[in-house]
Amino acid sequence: MNAQEIEHKVKNLLSQMTLEEKVGQMTQVDFSVIGDPKEQNAEDQINPAKLEDAVLKHHVGSILNAPLNQQVGSIFHPSFTSANNAQSVEIWRKLTRTVQDAAARSRLKIPVIYGIDAIHGATYTENSVLFPQAINMAATFNAELAFKEGEITAREVRVSGLQWNFSTVMDIGRQPLWPRLWETFGEDVHLATVMGTSYIKGHQGDNFSAVDKAPTCLKHYVGYSYPLNGKDRTPAWIGERTLREYFLPTFEAGIKAGSPTVMVNSAEVDGIPGHANHHYLTTILRGELGFKGFTVSDWADIKRLYTRDKMAASEKEAVKIAVMAGIDMSMVPFDFSFYDLLIDLVKSGEVPMSRIDEAVSRILTVKYQAGLFEPKPLLPIEGNFATAEAIETNRQAARESIILAKNDHNILPLKKDTNILVTGPTANLLNVMNGGWTITWQGDAEDLYPQEKLTVLEAIQEKSTGKVTYIGGDAFDAPIDVQQVVEEAKNHDVILLSLGEKPYTETAGNIESLNLDQAQVELANAAIATGKPVILLTLGGRPRIITSIAERASGVILGFLPGMEGGEAIADILYGDYNPNGKLPVSYPRNTNGITPYDYKPMESFEGNTYNPLYAFGHGLSYTTFATSGLKAEKEKIRMDENINVTVNVKNTGALTGKETVLLYINDVAASVTRPNKQLKAFKKVELNPGQTESVSFTLTPHDLSFIGVDLKRIVEPGDFKVMVGNEIVGFTVTE
Amino acid sequence: MNAQEIEHKVKNLLSQMTLEEKVGQMTQVDFSVIGDPKEQNAEDQINPAKLEDAVLKHHVGSILNAPLNQQVGSIFHPSFTSANNAQSVEIWRKLTRTVQDAAARSRLKIPVIYGIDAIHGATYTENSVLFPQAINMAATFNAELAFKEGEITAREVRVSGLQWNFSTVMDIGRQPLWPRLWETFGEDVHLATVMGTSYIKGHQGDNFSAVDKAPTCLKHYVGYSYPLNGKDRTPAWIGERTLREYFLPTFEAGIKAGSPTVMVNSAEVDGIPGHANHHYLTTILRGELGFKGFTVSDWADIKRLYTRDKMAASEKEAVKIAVMAGIDMSMVPFDFSFYDLLIDLVKSGEVPMSRIDEAVSRILTVKYQAGLFEPKPLLPIEGNFATAEAIETNRQAARESIILAKNDHNILPLKKDTNILVTGPTANLLNVMNGGWTITWQGDAEDLYPQEKLTVLEAIQEKSTGKVTYIGGDAFDAPIDVQQVVEEAKNHDVILLSLGEKPYTETAGNIESLNLDQAQVELANAAIATGKPVILLTLGGRPRIITSIAERASGVILGFLPGMEGGEAIADILYGDYNPNGKLPVSYPRNTNGITPYDYKPMESFEGNTYNPLYAFGHGLSYTTFATSGLKAEKEKIRMDENINVTVNVKNTGALTGKETVLLYINDVAASVTRPNKQLKAFKKVELNPGQTESVSFTLTPHDLSFIGVDLKRIVEPGDFKVMVGNEIVGFTVTE
Repeated sequence: MNAQEIEHKVKNLLSQMTLEEKVGQMTQVDFSVIGDPKEQNAEDQINPAKLEDAVLKHHVGSILNAPLNQQVGSIFHPSFTSANNAQSVEIWRKLTRTVQDAAARSRLKIPVIYGIDAIHGATYTENSVLFPQAINMAATFNAELAFKEGEITAREVRVSGLQWNFSTVMDIGRQPLWPRLWETFGEDVHLATVMGTSYIKGHQGDNFSAVDKAPTCLKHYVGYSYPLNGKDRTPAWIGERTLREYFLPTFEAGIKAGSPTVMVNSAEVDGIPGHANHHYLTTILRGELGFKGFTVSDWADIKRLYTRDKMAASEKEAVKIAVMAGIDMSMVPFDFSFYDLLIDLVKSGEVPMSRIDEAVSRILTVKYQAGLFEPKPLLPIEGNFATAEAIETNRQAARESIILAKNDHNILPLKKDTNILVTGPTANLLNVMNGGWTITWQGDAEDLYPQEKLTVLEAIQEKSTGKVTYIGGDAFDAPIDVQQVVEEAKNHDVILLSLGEKPYTETAGNIESLNLDQAQVELANAAIATGKPVILLTLGGRPRIITSIAERASGVILGFLPGMEGGEAIADILYGDYNPNGKLPVSYPRNTNGITPYDYKPMESFEGNTYNPLYAFGHGLSYTTFATSGLKAEKEKIRMDENINVTVNVKNTGALTGKETVLLYINDVAASVTRPNKQLKAFKKVELNPGQTESVSFTLTPHDLSFIGVDLKRIVEPGDFKVMVGNEIVGFTVTE
Repeated sequence: MNAQEIEHKVKNLLSQMTLEEKVGQMTQVDFSVIGDPKEQNAEDQINPAKLEDAVLKHHVGSILNAPLNQQVGSIFHPSFTSANNAQSVEIWRKLTRTVQDAAARSRLKIPVIYGIDAIHGATYTENSVLFPQAINMAATFNAELAFKEGEITAREVRVSGLQWNFSTVMDIGRQPLWPRLWETFGEDVHLATVMGTSYIKGHQGDNFSAVDKAPTCLKHYVGYSYPLNGKDRTPAWIGERTLREYFLPTFEAGIKAGSPTVMVNSAEVDGIPGHANHHYLTTILRGELGFKGFTVSDWADIKRLYTRDKMAASEKEAVKIAVMAGIDMSMVPFDFSFYDLLIDLVKSGEVPMSRIDEAVSRILTVKYQAGLFEPKPLLPIEGNFATAEAIETNRQAARESIILAKNDHNILPLKKDTNILVTGPTANLLNVMNGGWTITWQGDAEDLYPQEKLTVLEAIQEKSTGKVTYIGGDAFDAPIDVQQVVEEAKNHDVILLSLGEKPYTETAGNIESLNLDQAQVELANAAIATGKPVILLTLGGRPRIITSIAERASGVILGFLPGMEGGEAIADILYGDYNPNGKLPVSYPRNTNGITPYDYKPMESFEGNTYNPLYAFGHGLSYTTFATSGLKAEKEKIRMDENINVTVNVKNTGALTGKETVLLYINDVAASVTRPNKQLKAFKKVELNPGQTESVSFTLTPHDLSFIGVDLKRIVEPGDFKVMVGNEIVGFTVTE
């Protein structure tokens, strides 16, 4: 169906709809609204009367989340129970079939769109391919892997009968304390743009009505990722120039890449909650960015304009504020309050029908675009779900996402017969490699993890021909049997110290210090004091402070959240079965405060100020070495509207085949708004044999040279530019 | 001279001035430009030829800073030498006389205005009365003390022949890492407004041409105090609504209070350096706030638009940007580059003469207002400088500025015969109580401190009739002789653990963690492990993390920077010769991150988020107890333009006379921009005998109920308001 046909059909359908049917389309409820929790037989969880009430009586346009067939007490976050669990793909197909059958019995037969947080793969489908989280995908600097993740995720979501994915996170990760940092593609705008749009293209293809494609959702519009104090869902102070420079471009790119839905910032920017921000949601998003899709609230966030933010004197006023600001669909999620109140507001004239028609048209348009009105049979499970090829892609993504940060005297790779003492709380858990949004919301239900996947310890045990001893347990902040570690160290050649964080997401992951738990620091000190070489491995969503440990360790591997194949990938790297090539997508802080991103302003390295991370953005070692040379700009002068090509040679100067990402930075030498010391504008990953040289070329566009001016418009200013690759710099001049 | 006469005189004078004379007025240079450093005879430092060159040839309008008669290597900040030292009042009178005599020989006899950083008293005059720093003045919650500090400072500045004080800091201290936090009146807008304007009124009187008064300077306009990562002179991200809500009001109040000069933010807000921000300097400052005085750059900051910020392709362009943005005077400070370049810019038409005339008119107006054209003889030193009364006021300010944060089982006050072991790096230094801007820039030249002032240790030794033993030295980050402390503890009743920070200001005080130095933590752990009761005393400009120490200590005294009488004031409190009444003007953080001010938004204490400081804003104990009751609002309803009176009874329910500050907070129950959970809008400090009750009344004005709306205008919205005092809440309603 082409755009014109869809427009015609939407108009026609809208003209037949009652107010109630329209407002129903704008309503999204949680699965629990149509289901009853049952210990057994999750497939029977749908309560037919409740389903009828939601879909036929209240005309709901969308349902989200998974059933709760097993109440899993959150081991790490007891106050945050995981309210929904992964289901088998078979159950999902039945559940979603039942929902669609109900919708097909409605007066106008408008399909329900079933949405899910398929954050790193199909989170809530058992045994799905669960990729490295976004922070790791960014570390691969490999857009093709992000594309493939999108493809595989969409296919597995669709094979599960699900239709809409609340992914990808387009927020920029510049606040390392934020408990959702790992859901971002890191601190750089260009990197996040490339990875995010590649994912979207893989996920949606050219046409997301295809049976293996699904619409994505850009989130969380906008400015959500920079809470001042690091805690989730707390205020950001972002001026409009900064917003347009750092936080808006990824959303703009996501819209251009075709993502038809946008989820809204649960917190506030400059005093205005995301869900009440007409300027962002309407003036900028629809007006400037030309967004044609629909916006969906985040969890309960319209209610919260009243209950939390006190922007309204009643829930009804909150609904009015949000809808008039530009929210098209409310993730209510547990009742029909939004539906009832919005109907009242339209009847009393407080919300004009034109606004309702606009919202509903947008929602129906996406449903047509997604092919929901002409549903095709689901693909067979066999050959489309958790295929060997997809699992291999996942393992490759994991390998490319792991960062070798330090390797003194080539302590790594280890020989297979090395006697290795493995210790620390993250060595023998799958959840620490997967993080939140894995099987459950908080991702911490280790019991529900697939038994056949390997932890770091298990993967080492599989590969090692030496002695492997494990001491550690899974305590993060309780004392560890340090004495036993010291004792056992004597009998081993090397200690693998596996530290890090528990899984978490959202406010459950708030912390009050970037320091590691004290128990882990003490374990590290004891391990190092043994005199045996220590390899530090970190796992977890944030760069916790490891400086004093890393300085004394022989090797440092930063694992972040490498996903379900992370254990094997880490073992591949430890033993040299894979040559590491991940690079840091964030600046790894040296200490708890004074944190500075790589693209700092000149004043941040001037007279008493310095950029001094433990590891810089882009840092990452290999078992071979690379050198770049011969950096050349094609021209000395270009006009403001011209592209310019830049080339550089990259050579494998070591003894092993390996991959290297060539990073190209620019600097605008003088500008009317202070410019970062450097900004990444292009990168390319190449694989080279020992001694092999490749010429890599880049094209810089006017957009790459632009910035947000004093008047908040994007401009290119004439003047000198520098291009930096490796240790080389070339300049060119832009003329009017 | 009235305003009309001044206007007439300025116009007349301006009409006679050459371009060079005009631009000279806009030029401010450092003392070193007219002097030669000499080890001896600082009074002879002025080099007549250099003075002639500056004042007669280059027509400079202003000189700042003190001579360098002794190169003091900064013991704590070796890379930041203190480039000027305090001089005797006699030398200052001669030096400034010499400068004025030169100006009197100029063609138009326009006086030079001599400016100085008299931050907590006359910083650069030997033996001046040096008050508690601003953070402590705020802790007194005593506006009268701020007024008196202003009076005394102005008098001592003027007795020194100096004419203009680069004080007071009107920045809001919400970023505890910032190395100038202590120069602010803390995190609350109302408190800073009251303390800052009281200081200005004391300093300027009704007419700052009086022989004991001098013009103040509001700084650092605007948004300087919230560097994102805490480091001085680094970017702030502040949206315009937030800027108007938190950072602009104190400047607005300072202008209304009559301060005729404004110093500019050395860093940047939302990508625009303070010195290039036409919107802030011209549209808002002159346009909206109606500022009639002149703006002065901070140190070298016009040059830095080129050398640091790369906003310009040359220094000349930087001068143009700054002057056209609204800078009237350039603190160059070491040469005549600004003068030369600005003359060129006017000659080439790049800067219009109208802009020069505006700037010079503003400067000349302030010089007339300050009485510089009709100079009166300086007051005699005797009776006007470091008087006994002023010193007593200072000691009272110090006493009221010290916060008793914890007092388990009434460990304090100590009996005078208590055997006390004093340890820790801050116990026996004056500089740790004074901070930066004391005698030298960094305030760390202990050798230059007045011998007769007492450190904490010395004050204890004077007062105690028991055994006083001191172990500690002055090492902050080197190991301390912990074993000796443990040994000696056995022979004492109590341990006073005096921890904290070295003195510093500006970038020299940057830190990368709020944690205390490890050596201090180890000393504290050892002291506590002795089992003897420990009283923790902290000194220094920032709230460094003391949580685990404070939890185990019996008593905690937060000293911050109580000034030159701080040692005696602390001893007064330790031994009960003074009943403490200071209250925290900032939230004291529990940990290094996750920092939240007291006036947080509701979302910061909602579902997983909490306000959890170690000590809350307003916290402070007494040796007696107080209770408030009977909170009453005079009316249930008021119109938007009406005041409302609120009364409450406060009673001394303990056994000792003491002072209590009654704090009145409001909450706007529902508003179109999220409102803080509470905001301080009034406070009153009362002294009560045991059993005495006083009725305290407050008047809330429409301004107190207002906020910055969606359209960036200050508004009052009809609706419900809550008033909170102590544990009581009353409500009232505002109608249209």
